[in-house]
Amino acid sequence: MSEKIKVAVIGASGYTGIELIKILDNHEKAEIKYMTSRTYSGKKAGDVFPLTLSLKNNSERSFIDEIKKENLNSIDAIFLCLPPGKSMEYIAEIKDAFNGKIIDLGADFRIKNEKEYEKWYGNHHILKDYLPKFVYGLSEINREAIKKADYVANPGCYPTSVLLALAPILKTGNFKIDSINIDSKSGVSGAGKKLKEDYLFLNIINNFYAYSAVNHRHIPEMEQEIKNMSGFQINICFTPHLLPVDRGIFSTIYINLKKNSNIVNIENNIFEYFNDLYKAEIFVQFLGENMPELKDVVGTNTAQIGFMFDKRTNTIKIFSAIDNILKGASGQAVQNMNIMFGFKEDEGLRLNSIYN
Amino acid sequence: MSEKIKVAVIGASGYTGIELIKILDNHEKAEIKYMTSRTYSGKKAGDVFPLTLSLKNNSERSFIDEIKKENLNSIDAIFLCLPPGKSMEYIAEIKDAFNGKIIDLGADFRIKNEKEYEKWYGNHHILKDYLPKFVYGLSEINREAIKKADYVANPGCYPTSVLLALAPILKTGNFKIDSINIDSKSGVSGAGKKLKEDYLFLNIINNFYAYSAVNHRHIPEMEQEIKNMSGFQINICFTPHLLPVDRGIFSTIYINLKKNSNIVNIENNIFEYFNDLYKAEIFVQFLGENMPELKDVVGTNTAQIGFMFDKRTNTIKIFSAIDNILKGASGQAVQNMNIMFGFKEDEGLRLNSIYN
Amino acid sequence: MSEKIKVAVIGASGYTGIELIKILDNHEKAEIKYMTSRTYSGKKAGDVFPLTLSLKNNSERSFIDEIKKENLNSIDAIFLCLPPGKSMEYIAEIKDAFNGKIIDLGADFRIKNEKEYEKWYGNHHILKDYLPKFVYGLSEINREAIKKADYVANPGCYPTSVLLALAPILKTGNFKIDSINIDSKSGVSGAGKKLKEDYLFLNIINNFYAYSAVNHRHIPEMEQEIKNMSGFQINICFTPHLLPVDRGIFSTIYINLKKNSNIVNIENNIFEYFNDLYKAEIFVQFLGENMPELKDVVGTNTAQIGFMFDKRTNTIKIFSAIDNILKGASGQAVQNMNIMFGFKEDEGLRLNSIYN
Amino acid sequence: MSEKIKVAVIGASGYTGIELIKILDNHEKAEIKYMTSRTYSGKKAGDVFPLTLSLKNNSERSFIDEIKKENLNSIDAIFLCLPPGKSMEYIAEIKDAFNGKIIDLGADFRIKNEKEYEKWYGNHHILKDYLPKFVYGLSEINREAIKKADYVANPGCYPTSVLLALAPILKTGNFKIDSINIDSKSGVSGAGKKLKEDYLFLNIINNFYAYSAVNHRHIPEMEQEIKNMSGFQINICFTPHLLPVDRGIFSTIYINLKKNSNIVNIENNIFEYFNDLYKAEIFVQFLGENMPELKDVVGTNTAQIGFMFDKRTNTIKIFSAIDNILKGASGQAVQNMNIMFGFKEDEGLRLNSIYN
Repeated sequence: MSEKIKVAVIGASGYTGIELIKILDNHEKAEIKYMTSRTYSGKKAGDVFPLTLSLKNNSERSFIDEIKKENLNSIDAIFLCLPPGKSMEYIAEIKDAFNGKIIDLGADFRIKNEKEYEKWYGNHHILKDYLPKFVYGLSEINREAIKKADYVANPGCYPTSVLLALAPILKTGNFKIDSINIDSKSGVSGAGKKLKEDYLFLNIINNFYAYSAVNHRHIPEMEQEIKNMSGFQINICFTPHLLPVDRGIFSTIYINLKKNSNIVNIENNIFEYFNDLYKAEIFVQFLGENMPELKDVVGTNTAQIGFMFDKRTNTIKIFSAIDNILKGASGQAVQNMNIMFGFKEDEGLRLNSIYN
Repeated sequence: MSEKIKVAVIGASGYTGIELIKILDNHEKAEIKYMTSRTYSGKKAGDVFPLTLSLKNNSERSFIDEIKKENLNSIDAIFLCLPPGKSMEYIAEIKDAFNGKIIDLGADFRIKNEKEYEKWYGNHHILKDYLPKFVYGLSEINREAIKKADYVANPGCYPTSVLLALAPILKTGNFKIDSINIDSKSGVSGAGKKLKEDYLFLNIINNFYAYSAVNHRHIPEMEQEIKNMSGFQINICFTPHLLPVDRGIFSTIYINLKKNSNIVNIENNIFEYFNDLYKAEIFVQFLGENMPELKDVVGTNTAQIGFMFDKRTNTIKIFSAIDNILKGASGQAVQNMNIMFGFKEDEGLRLNSIYN
Repeated sequence: MSEKIKVAVIGASGYTGIELIKILDNHEKAEIKYMTSRTYSGKKAGDVFPLTLSLKNNSERSFIDEIKKENLNSIDAIFLCLPPGKSMEYIAEIKDAFNGKIIDLGADFRIKNEKEYEKWYGNHHILKDYLPKFVYGLSEINREAIKKADYVANPGCYPTSVLLALAPILKTGNFKIDSINIDSKSGVSGAGKKLKEDYLFLNIINNFYAYSAVNHRHIPEMEQEIKNMSGFQINICFTPHLLPVDRGIFSTIYINLKKNSNIVNIENNIFEYFNDLYKAEIFVQFLGENMPELKDVVGTNTAQIGFMFDKRTNTIKIFSAIDNILKGASGQAVQNMNIMFGFKEDEGLRLNSIYN
Repeated sequence: MSEKIKVAVIGASGYTGIELIKILDNHEKAEIKYMTSRTYSGKKAGDVFPLTLSLKNNSERSFIDEIKKENLNSIDAIFLCLPPGKSMEYIAEIKDAFNGKIIDLGADFRIKNEKEYEKWYGNHHILKDYLPKFVYGLSEINREAIKKADYVANPGCYPTSVLLALAPILKTGNFKIDSINIDSKSGVSGAGKKLKEDYLFLNIINNFYAYSAVNHRHIPEMEQEIKNMSGFQINICFTPHLLPVDRGIFSTIYINLKKNSNIVNIENNIFEYFNDLYKAEIFVQFLGENMPELKDVVGTNTAQIGFMFDKRTNTIKIFSAIDNILKGASGQAVQNMNIMFGFKEDEGLRLNSIYN
């Protein structure tokens, strides 16, 4: 029965790394072989997280500093949970010794135009020839390519919440879009595990504010995929805000239609496009004109999407809710692994929301 | 020393009514003479709110069912805290017997076009001739008219947060505006004191969602005042959301400029327009390109406003934070009373935020 | 493969009923055959909870008003989620027609002395002869009796958090106990699904207070089981408080030892007693002198317990954390079903905390 | 009119220092002359806290590193907001040059037995001769001594919440007390402004736990004052917990009476003792058998106290709620200044709770 694939998690001590380990701990077709962490190197998971109830099968496993070259080929897949610039360094280092699959949760291979990458991230790209090899891992949209991929660039959290909501509209080509404005609200875990005064309880509770109010790094990733889905080059207006909740992203997306748009039956058309694209999906739930709520998706790998058409301003409003750490990061990464290896797509991901 | 004016609060048991009483309890120039409440009629404030520390001077005062006609003229000012349709009924009833000043915290006299009022509120307007007599009480913008007014229509909470933020831009006439999109987020007290399943702790904590996602009733009020400030008739796109906090409104306002706008030095211009309008104001704090935070204004009568210009999309983003019950309702109502009676504008309103 | 047992949930629309349905929806050895609810009778689960992601297999199943007598014997087990007094009425009604197993999540069969029951609950007991037939379902403590039981009285949420923490101390008989004082703090879901002003967001957030400060109904249940575990009749001092969190119970338990107690090596002894009792348990985690935290257990069926000995006052302090709806109600109910039917004890209950 | 006294705040950048500045900013009889802070030295208050609305009169005032010796005698009172060990060092340094009054918000002069101080705080006491000169500043209890004092040791936050609740019981001498057990719950601001992983939003929200579960440093202070009020030497059992709220301390206090106590009419007696002691107080509100709530006192200088007698266990339960930064620190410090200088006791302290 030991036919489980062997996986490694590189950078396993941040929020996305830990969440990956929790999911993989319960996965019937994959098992963790290595997990690396500079911070926790040499310590057992069960000692680092002594009270964590979700590491049952890996509590005796130790974090290591790095995987020895000669051991790389005992691994079927590597998950990278590294800061910008570090994934390409790591791949450059191991590429000759490793021939398994890679799922990168970082930003280095999402943006295909290296100039754009360098402009927004400030890093020189050292593995340009790998950019075309990485499939953009928005599972529901790029499933066929992911199936065949060796390398997947897992989407950012905001882009996941936004692109799943835009896809049915963009892919039809039936709307004349004037502008796209995205007002996103994220829980605090989106900021990662930083010990920063901004993230103290006293600075978050009873509070709300905008941050990175222009030029957030997820913009080029969204614009690239909008173009890929629609052929349509557009500058989007994107503004993230910080919510006093631990988890979840709620995006309110305003698609302003051109004045001469034909808007007869527009609601019916939107229903149809969403249902066509998502009715068979297990991890996208289209609610029609019902509103998604953050608490319904937190703890799950599901995106919930609703919409309204504001005819006074010719604007389609789309409302999208995901768990930023699951569908927005580690959950979608495992979903992509499942697709890449031909497992059931929800293997390890049949998670209950505790709130709804 | 008993030169305090005498005021009455009609409908004193909702959130805005109670907040008014708390402010007036501490006011050096005004004192409560009557407070009416169907719910609490006959009971003392100190018995209804036995643990409330903020009703020191009025704890022995009883709520009454209504003010007798013959007593009306002992009152200098009446605050109305009544649901839509009820303010006009009340004024119709007392207008011949009362010749003091009225500050209406409700919606009946904000919208000057009675057709619009009837369309959005579903009530037939029974006091059309009073519509022009009511000054729209956005204190900083209409101060001169408020000084001379007998009747003030106190703005809605969302319109206050939005119009103060738009005013410096609109009043210059120097921007060619293509569209205005407003994404607002409100604390739960904005919904009033309703015992509704939606407002249970379990449905709000860890949650976030949009509501009244098209056609919220505050839209015509904002469009009317935008027109008054700019001469400019525009349909705005407005979407309110519910935050898991008790108090506060944060509005993110997107002013999309026409493509042929001259945007040279736009940031400097915006700084100048805001500073010109607000530098002498005690209750509006312009932060430039710093971001307001909800916790800094909650508990105070102050609006904080910041901005960013997104040149990729030709969009001015304005960020506005207020306490919905204070600057968005009862605080501004007292500010208006202070203006109408020639008191210091911050009398009774020198409130500290407890969070910042 | 349809060897799953068939179960019914009576009173399925409260928090414990819904949680049961969510757990059973994922259970490999049991399936829901009927779920009754006065409130939702005739409606499909998927329509009542359209956004709930955790009812995948039962979304097409309708709530019914009641199970017809002739259908009762197609059911292997009934879960009762009914208010005090209603479980005994229901059993009185069906007892001649049903010969499967019953797990009662209510209070009617927990207290074996019907006089005590009547005194604390104010209900006349109509099924006294069934009292001895019901095993008190504190899974870890009464497992052997539960295995053989046809009827299980599932413990209350506070008693579960307290009795698991007391058991290792009480069962040894090696401590001379002077008094037991329990200060418990519960999340709001403990109050059930009541639409009450007390449970509005605005009355819970930023707040904390005690309630039922003397004579809470869980007292006789705890005293009875303390006696069963120790032979020791004691009046406990118990005070529940309301926390601004949705889920979880944290109990701080003070065991004051008699002045002439031998307290040499007391910490070592406590370690030993806890480890002896719980080291093999999957749902009780003893942390020694580490402190449990609510967020680590919420969403799971696990109890976490730590302790400190305060030698200045001769007091053993025990700290206990559970999820009130899971280990404190529906999770333990399924754990008991698993024990009664010989399933793996954690079947359906391998739940991850989303916070830790 | 410049008859205001001049005060200095030493260590003005922590939570208690900032809160002092906010209160003094609004005080009609006192004004800040100096405020020192290592962290912010050379910066204006208005630049350090640009968005703070509560520093109206001092926003142009700069923090300084220290007060020059020759300037000390232009000051009427000094507030010390310093960590343990630092207040005595500071006083040792200035004592020959300063002859005004001192209010120490730190711990160095609260415990009169220097051996106890050294044992619990681990610091050698270098100003033992000053210990008897410092009056313990529990305003309501020691008012007469405070009036005449030059030096006041302001009580700790937990001791304030506990001692005000115990005083009426202890001072009568009519109860035979067997043990006192105190279970306290504090908001996060009680921990001060530390950048520590424990105080991140993600580790506090939805969470609750005990800390310093034995031997918290406030124990000797409480035991000393219990003895002073009652003549009664007792070891108290004290356990603090961390609440997911920003402000407030709620203490549940269990006074276990000796078995042979005469408990006839005990509730009436307790009513009488509390009313006798507190009915004339503006900052202590006795609620009888009503329960205090944290939200009612947060933002104010008031303590609310309720009680219940549990006759099954012979235990008086007292429930006490304060704002830890106000009545538990800076508010009481200003109250003490008002008493020392003969100002109205609530000068600068007429603060409204924003929640009730």
